[in-house]
Amino acid sequence: MSPSPTVPANVESLFPAIQSDLDLIEVRLRQVVHSRLAVVPEVYLHTVEAGGKRIRPALTLLCARLMGGIGPTTYDRAVAVELIHLASLLHDDVVDNSDMRRARMTANRIWGNKNAVLVADFAQATAVHLLARVCDIETIANLSVTVVRMAEGELCQVYHEGSVDVDEDLYYRMIGDKTASLLALAARLGAEGADGDERAIAVCETYGEKLGLAFQVVDDLLDLTGDEETIGKPVGSDVRCGRLTLAPIHALRQGDAAAERVRDLVCAKDPTQLDLPALRAVLEASGSIDYARRAAERLAAEAVDCLADYAGQVERDALVTLAEYVIARTK
Amino acid sequence: MSPSPTVPANVESLFPAIQSDLDLIEVRLRQVVHSRLAVVPEVYLHTVEAGGKRIRPALTLLCARLMGGIGPTTYDRAVAVELIHLASLLHDDVVDNSDMRRARMTANRIWGNKNAVLVADFAQATAVHLLARVCDIETIANLSVTVVRMAEGELCQVYHEGSVDVDEDLYYRMIGDKTASLLALAARLGAEGADGDERAIAVCETYGEKLGLAFQVVDDLLDLTGDEETIGKPVGSDVRCGRLTLAPIHALRQGDAAAERVRDLVCAKDPTQLDLPALRAVLEASGSIDYARRAAERLAAEAVDCLADYAGQVERDALVTLAEYVIARTK
Repeated sequence: MSPSPTVPANVESLFPAIQSDLDLIEVRLRQVVHSRLAVVPEVYLHTVEAGGKRIRPALTLLCARLMGGIGPTTYDRAVAVELIHLASLLHDDVVDNSDMRRARMTANRIWGNKNAVLVADFAQATAVHLLARVCDIETIANLSVTVVRMAEGELCQVYHEGSVDVDEDLYYRMIGDKTASLLALAARLGAEGADGDERAIAVCETYGEKLGLAFQVVDDLLDLTGDEETIGKPVGSDVRCGRLTLAPIHALRQGDAAAERVRDLVCAKDPTQLDLPALRAVLEASGSIDYARRAAERLAAEAVDCLADYAGQVERDALVTLAEYVIARTK
Repeated sequence: MSPSPTVPANVESLFPAIQSDLDLIEVRLRQVVHSRLAVVPEVYLHTVEAGGKRIRPALTLLCARLMGGIGPTTYDRAVAVELIHLASLLHDDVVDNSDMRRARMTANRIWGNKNAVLVADFAQATAVHLLARVCDIETIANLSVTVVRMAEGELCQVYHEGSVDVDEDLYYRMIGDKTASLLALAARLGAEGADGDERAIAVCETYGEKLGLAFQVVDDLLDLTGDEETIGKPVGSDVRCGRLTLAPIHALRQGDAAAERVRDLVCAKDPTQLDLPALRAVLEASGSIDYARRAAERLAAEAVDCLADYAGQVERDALVTLAEYVIARTK
């Protein structure tokens, strides 16, 4: 996917600007999981070190800054959110039987499903424990609602695998639950830990939810149009699993020859033999790739619009840049 | 396994005596998991309805009674503990690739690993949410420590699969983590919800931990000597997975001909071809079955000894009966 022409140059400056904070998060992430069993840190650190973009901790940090600055509990909050994310990656890879993620073998591939599922449980419980030390009971309630939403989004996606009846509303509900819910929580936790008031916390939460939707639309686009080597995992996996994402949903709705062709390609009898270049070409020709890209840009713009009260603040500009990054990323 | 001669007749009266409370738990258990997706209650209710002994909620209720009576939050506490247990069963069956549990097909067998793993996540998060509504933050911290212990116990067991170097200390640590930790929490939650003081809560917690150890020793014995039809799942599964439990650990330690024979049987090249009757016979002849049974009885007696302060109370007698039930059960 070539970068959108609307992407500004300062995206590259975003992560350097919060690098010292993110470095602290990296250190804490590596310290927080303890066990007598060597396999626990092995599996866990493998997952941590596969890297990832640390979008969620960055969001917690940036929302804390917007509310006045990093508070005494901000780092623990950011680490807890990333632990929930890492646990969900471990579970997802077991559930999808994935071999590769971020150019490395998955934990389930190396250590087997048992270790991957159990270390995920371990990481998730560690996140709850971390938050229980620094937050109040309402935060725990919000966390549990988020984990329920994440599971529900994944379950809904599993339920509709192989169906061509997924429409945009259902698609947005699924990605809202499975992805945006945790970004919303990441933003809320940042604002809460910096003593934002209820209105400010709600602003951050809505920003996080919109950003999360944009993030997942782009993720789904990258699975269709991205470069396998850059992404570090096989592309086309959604279609191979029978999962419709925004671009094919758009194409199928048109009821024209392109829609027929997309239907044939995504409903192929042997999905492992998917002709991805052909699917990509027809989705590009039908304008469906552009449609999905514009949807992501609109969601990112809506995220930024939430921040109108903070116009002129440098901390708000960083969140604008984060939204730009989410759209511009190629992995 | 024939009932031990020390088992009194009043075991049968235990569950009828708390039946009305347990009925309320059953109703709450069925109401507490909500989802837009039909598959969530399907998978969840299948797991709930497979029944189980509800030892953990019974423990919460009985410890609440010991502290003066069922409090306003006791039922929610009992339900949360059972949710954590049900989630762990779902995960275990995925992890062990089990087909049968309690005479029914497992959820992973019917709905696949994805649904089973994700509904387990759903149930676990629902438990946290339930407790967050009725407990304080320290209870959440205790819950998360328990879930970490459960995962660590399972991981330790997975790590040692196929090893004959597991000794009694390691065995007790593993079953303490994977099983006794949740019974200890169940007891603690009951005492806390009935406003027990710190000492009384600690008594209940220790009772629960000891009872949990006894419970798992008996569970492991039933897997060697139990009746497949009564238990509702294949026996011999521990040995087939390469997991040593107390009786074979005892036999292997003797260094005699029986130990050699046990080693040959548990280290068979094809564990699916396990000669369970032969293993059972040699473990009986070597006194190892009796050894494990006496160990379970000793642990149950230690659990009861914790309750000395409550001698003469009818609520204490119910906990004594629960300990007797744990030893006497045949499934």
